[in-house]
Amino acid sequence: VSHAPTEGATSRLAIDLDDVLAARDRIAGAVHRTPVLTSRLLDERTGRELFFKCENLQRAGSFKIRGATSKIRSLSPVERERGVVAFSSGNHAQAVALAAGEAGVDAVIVMPVDAPRAKRTATAAYGARVVGYDRMTDDREEIARRIVEEEGRVLVPPYDDPLVMAGQGTAALELLEDVPELDAVVVPVGGGGLLAGTATALLGFEGVRAYGAEPAAADDTARSLELGRRITIDPPDTVADGARVQTPGFLTFPVVRERAEAVVRVSEASLVRAVELLMSRMKIVVEPTGALAAAAALEGEIPADAGRIGIVLSGGNVDPATLARLIGEEPRG
Amino acid sequence: VSHAPTEGATSRLAIDLDDVLAARDRIAGAVHRTPVLTSRLLDERTGRELFFKCENLQRAGSFKIRGATSKIRSLSPVERERGVVAFSSGNHAQAVALAAGEAGVDAVIVMPVDAPRAKRTATAAYGARVVGYDRMTDDREEIARRIVEEEGRVLVPPYDDPLVMAGQGTAALELLEDVPELDAVVVPVGGGGLLAGTATALLGFEGVRAYGAEPAAADDTARSLELGRRITIDPPDTVADGARVQTPGFLTFPVVRERAEAVVRVSEASLVRAVELLMSRMKIVVEPTGALAAAAALEGEIPADAGRIGIVLSGGNVDPATLARLIGEEPRG
Repeated sequence: VSHAPTEGATSRLAIDLDDVLAARDRIAGAVHRTPVLTSRLLDERTGRELFFKCENLQRAGSFKIRGATSKIRSLSPVERERGVVAFSSGNHAQAVALAAGEAGVDAVIVMPVDAPRAKRTATAAYGARVVGYDRMTDDREEIARRIVEEEGRVLVPPYDDPLVMAGQGTAALELLEDVPELDAVVVPVGGGGLLAGTATALLGFEGVRAYGAEPAAADDTARSLELGRRITIDPPDTVADGARVQTPGFLTFPVVRERAEAVVRVSEASLVRAVELLMSRMKIVVEPTGALAAAAALEGEIPADAGRIGIVLSGGNVDPATLARLIGEEPRG
Repeated sequence: VSHAPTEGATSRLAIDLDDVLAARDRIAGAVHRTPVLTSRLLDERTGRELFFKCENLQRAGSFKIRGATSKIRSLSPVERERGVVAFSSGNHAQAVALAAGEAGVDAVIVMPVDAPRAKRTATAAYGARVVGYDRMTDDREEIARRIVEEEGRVLVPPYDDPLVMAGQGTAALELLEDVPELDAVVVPVGGGGLLAGTATALLGFEGVRAYGAEPAAADDTARSLELGRRITIDPPDTVADGARVQTPGFLTFPVVRERAEAVVRVSEASLVRAVELLMSRMKIVVEPTGALAAAAALEGEIPADAGRIGIVLSGGNVDPATLARLIGEEPRG
């Protein structure tokens, strides 16, 4: 560890490097050490050396199991007894369900009744109880408050939690252990948990910069960074469903602002192209949100002085039919 | 190495364990050590522990780079100067092109003029010269003889060559190093090079049995084993294009007969189901031929006393559009 923290800076922020290192120890054995893949063709095409950290091959299909396990393994005996609750129709739902099930902790996952059946089924298959709510008529905040207060369950937030953020940073630790000499690591940005954890993990590796990649159509974090304060955008329309977030996290944003180099924007077309390239050239299934960082690197959005780039492919939970439709619709050229 | 070879047996066969070990040293640095993936869901579904050796993530998209590199790195200086030739429209073509290009050896790849454009382009992109022939009017044997005799090029056969067979066996060596306690290793069978190499590699690991998996619609090897001699079948109709072989190899068959436990049959429907499961559950793209061994294990074709099974996913070279069509046609239930 070669980083000397800026004096006074760490006390303001939700996590520091030690938290990520502690999370690594805490989640050991519960998550896969995912492989790092390379592609000569993509290196030639970009003129960089790209190293793809395959969190799409992670348990429950995304990096989210890291944060969920970090949080659940930190519960006190009393909290474990009461169980946990999470609000998600995406990768966080499956991650919390799996992490809780393995820890012997009861889990309730609250998702909209119109969430894809496959996601409900997958979440239930990990042993969680799925509670539906109607997006039009039900008050999600009210449901949350009732479950947390009446049942005494611990909320596992998708990103705005120090234990969750620290857990997400462990992917970058593994990547840098496997590929020591990187100039940059690029990760997708939704609520900012992965970027906050990654940028914090990189404090342990001098000279390695953290970049986020966000859909241009859902650029709440990029715009917030430009303005220096958290802004809220209209509900965004992007194929990257995991990045349809309207404002950066309360806890994640200060960490990102302090420690990340920049957040770059990715077009919808380049995102679909990246998904197709990862499939046809690298033989892996990456969901659109999971391909944000790859798209940024492939489109030359990362500054040219970053010759060796680590890319976190953050998830692979997209069903083959959706994938086929996406690629069929890809604009050519 | 705990195996005591049957007395006198090795001298009759094209390769022995030492050849595979030598091939491993020879190809070091030119091939990826591919990851081994697992899936809790697929383990639960089969009641076994399955370990997937991902040669679909190998360079040039399949295990074929192992055999091609083993052969090309064994050439004498004079042979290197003359160059190589291969006949293939499939994974062997790309593998020979890449291996030759990296060794600075000139390569000619002969493929039918009606081969998919993507395969011609990929092969040419690795620096090989692609020569087309008309399946209806040209005599492939004549083309081969002319190129080998007139140009003095060395033929790199797809399977019937000791150096190629030995190279293919190196995937099993890596798998057993990563997962020592296996009961069986299952691999796809076309001409038998991968199975011959694998069964030979397993001589070094006592009690680990080698199985082949073949399309039921192209069961030339299974039938030949049952009859005790090589038979030739009619041109088979199977989605597993890499297994459309009409007779087992002259050199591979005796090795398979002596050292493999059995070759099991896989239906077309189960093959497509396996491709879909590998995509939706494990987030990887595997071509139909590459999924033969997985389909055999998922359908319970491997004897029940094999609790821990290594499965070689042999290749991933299928374009997304074809994949989408395949999965769309999958018979349900």
